Amino acid sequence: MNADKIRTAIKKFDRFLVSAHINPEGDSIGSQIAAASLLRRLGKEVVIVNESAVPHLLRFMKGTEDILKEMPANFKFQAAIVLDCPDLTRLGKISECIGKDTTVINIDHHISNEKFGKYNWVDTKSSSVGEMVFELFKAFRLKIKYDEAVAMYVAIMTDTGSFKYVNTSSSTHKIAADLIDSGVEPYDMYGKIYETSSLQDTSLLGEALQTLRVSDDGKIAWLWVTKEMLKKTKASLEGTEGIINFARSIEGVEIAIFFRETGTEGRVKVSFRSKGRVDVNKLASFFKGGGHTTASGCTVFGKMSEVEKKVLKQAQVMVK
Amino acid sequence: MNADKIRTAIKKFDRFLVSAHINPEGDSIGSQIAAASLLRRLGKEVVIVNESAVPHLLRFMKGTEDILKEMPANFKFQAAIVLDCPDLTRLGKISECIGKDTTVINIDHHISNEKFGKYNWVDTKSSSVGEMVFELFKAFRLKIKYDEAVAMYVAIMTDTGSFKYVNTSSSTHKIAADLIDSGVEPYDMYGKIYETSSLQDTSLLGEALQTLRVSDDGKIAWLWVTKEMLKKTKASLEGTEGIINFARSIEGVEIAIFFRETGTEGRVKVSFRSKGRVDVNKLASFFKGGGHTTASGCTVFGKMSEVEKKVLKQAQVMVK
Repeated sequence: MNADKIRTAIKKFDRFLVSAHINPEGDSIGSQIAAASLLRRLGKEVVIVNESAVPHLLRFMKGTEDILKEMPANFKFQAAIVLDCPDLTRLGKISECIGKDTTVINIDHHISNEKFGKYNWVDTKSSSVGEMVFELFKAFRLKIKYDEAVAMYVAIMTDTGSFKYVNTSSSTHKIAADLIDSGVEPYDMYGKIYETSSLQDTSLLGEALQTLRVSDDGKIAWLWVTKEMLKKTKASLEGTEGIINFARSIEGVEIAIFFRETGTEGRVKVSFRSKGRVDVNKLASFFKGGGHTTASGCTVFGKMSEVEKKVLKQAQVMVK
Repeated sequence: MNADKIRTAIKKFDRFLVSAHINPEGDSIGSQIAAASLLRRLGKEVVIVNESAVPHLLRFMKGTEDILKEMPANFKFQAAIVLDCPDLTRLGKISECIGKDTTVINIDHHISNEKFGKYNWVDTKSSSVGEMVFELFKAFRLKIKYDEAVAMYVAIMTDTGSFKYVNTSSSTHKIAADLIDSGVEPYDMYGKIYETSSLQDTSLLGEALQTLRVSDDGKIAWLWVTKEMLKKTKASLEGTEGIINFARSIEGVEIAIFFRETGTEGRVKVSFRSKGRVDVNKLASFFKGGGHTTASGCTVFGKMSEVEKKVLKQAQVMVK
């Protein structure tokens, strides 16, 4: 399956549902609005329906205002385009709109994709679904408009961490070049997506960094966010995201660990990051959690000091 | 002047000095070793001589081991290729090797370049001199080798802040794509350049973030590094670099200010960053400092609290 075959499939239908996974990020939202815009330019009727609201950060993108949270009662779609979902459960409650007889066009880049559609275009070499929607524009020979370029650029930039993750390829850069030629200003996009911290969250980072420790062999770095810190700084839970990277970025560190006190007494959320050599999915599995080789997590029960001791002990075993 | 004309100039000579500015960063070092490699492949004799040592961080690049700190006594060069220097004084003491009769090939992207060479190729639209050396490889129709690709990729990645600064263009991305096709792994490069913090410097960041404040109107954010913090965390002075970006990244902030106590009593180094609307070069000039529209600095004399008050007062005037 490729962009050309998806093009042939799309031509068969007139009314589309477009959806993507719950807890959306840049690639989910960006690829949906670019795909919907493409369909509308072909004269198709389209609704985008998502279980979750569009994150505040991404609302600057034109087209996000059209994303619905409920399926309109009077809209009968002929095909559903499902983006960036390894399986249908990732749609959340929107999966209820999809029956056994629904024609599903599945466009995704996850290696774990379950090929749940009638048409399955799964390109695991693609950095993002944004990249794949770009290929679709090329297949239809449509000149990309500014708002579409912004949506796809945001999809690609966020899924590659600004062209640095392992999924960044020469195609990724070639597409970015094309989108810039369509009017995207990289500096503007970066500012809108990455330079929007709050004082509260930045203060929380400061508090958390005070707890940063590194093991004697330099291979494990860990830090905490406690309930008290969240209270003191008035930071949001989302403000804890990314803190683990400061442990990961220390030279020589192979496993970064982030401990976060949850609301519930004696319950600690633990996140792991690896630079590649150590499989932190295994580490999380030991504590009945899961994830990927380089990013995983679990919940561990016990007092803070006990949890820290238990997790560090297991990390020491893994890092040897 | 363009890459083709520089190609014609290079062909005239057999022995070259290659140099670039003092306090080198990725573009300075990367473009020098790529240019020297190109010359050697043409059968030329080349020495790279720099006043400053290669930063520890950049020594993973092959070719950096050839960079000399003194001009070899027995080497008589016919032409000097000067990279990334707006004027010859930026060469530091290496400028002493360049007399009135020296043939200078000046390759730079600074708008302030003084065209001090016999051949002056100044492309202010280029993100980096690394991009220009890439054009030179194309002009000579040389297939780029892995080590050369790494050098140019590092030059481009560091000068664009990983493809996010205002100098990032579609050409930048096209060249990055080409270098990846020559074997560069973006994730590997990013790790080598950006994921090499020390525990000490990260702890200093934590301390500094404790002092972060934002003005009532949300437009000015500032923070401090004191002598005590440096002592407590054992961080390096280079560890203070980048701290100002955490103030700059707060949503709504237009001026970020970073105060750093120097060794000398009553002397505070002040750095400014702007997101573009406010000209912080003017702000620094008020205190007899200077820089660019979006990044500048100065030294202010007085007690910490007085300096803070004085600088904030002037920043308030500018931000209105």
